[in-house]
Amino acid sequence: MCDMRKLITLVLAAISFVACTQKSVNKNMEQQQDSLITRIAEIEVYDQYLDEYLAAAKNVGGESVAKEEGVICIFPMQVKDEPKTIRIVEIYRDEAAYKSHLQTEHFQTYKQGTLHMVKSLRLVDTHPLAPEAMEQIFEKL
Amino acid sequence: MCDMRKLITLVLAAISFVACTQKSVNKNMEQQQDSLITRIAEIEVYDQYLDEYLAAAKNVGGESVAKEEGVICIFPMQVKDEPKTIRIVEIYRDEAAYKSHLQTEHFQTYKQGTLHMVKSLRLVDTHPLAPEAMEQIFEKL
Repeated sequence: MCDMRKLITLVLAAISFVACTQKSVNKNMEQQQDSLITRIAEIEVYDQYLDEYLAAAKNVGGESVAKEEGVICIFPMQVKDEPKTIRIVEIYRDEAAYKSHLQTEHFQTYKQGTLHMVKSLRLVDTHPLAPEAMEQIFEKL
Repeated sequence: MCDMRKLITLVLAAISFVACTQKSVNKNMEQQQDSLITRIAEIEVYDQYLDEYLAAAKNVGGESVAKEEGVICIFPMQVKDEPKTIRIVEIYRDEAAYKSHLQTEHFQTYKQGTLHMVKSLRLVDTHPLAPEAMEQIFEKL
């Protein structure tokens, strides 16, 4: 009887532990989702600089994602019907990761090197409709 | 001396095999990148249906990515400064995966259920500037 009680106590303790750990994991995930920066940058490039701009924009995304832990996604696309229009999907882990990204050599090289090529830049800040589904899409989440 | 020749032949054969395999892997990756469909859907929703639309759009992305091997990304975002504007980043493995997605029950439920809520829909087709860098961003690539 005494053994049975011990066993029940043990099982209950184990269940509490698992539930508590799960809660903590969920909480961490929620915090992570809350602090995400998600954005689409819309860029129009001057005609005469298009090829040069494309080459510069091509490299900076991959380099940032590879080198910076807090850069989840920098995904530049060229709009098919408007080749001078570039859209970049950007996701940073948090404000600190974004600020740190702005200071990197690769970003500064891109930014300073392309300033004169950019006709307009609009940063469209967004929030994800289903942040909990992002883990199955993005490698680093 | 004979053994040494055999060894050299063996090493050369192994090198050729590895190089050949690598070439084939690269070729497969290139083919995969070439056939990708990448797009941003831009949706404006009628004021009175906004909450209802958000709830419907929230679910369909996660469900598609979870259930359909060829859906790499359906990532809906609400524009912070224009809450009635939704942008959805969509990536399908190829045309077949996209067509198959259009036939699924979850997509049809979303599509038919939200038709009257949508004021405008624009599908902005794009091509990725750095397809080779997508593997480090998207879970399924």
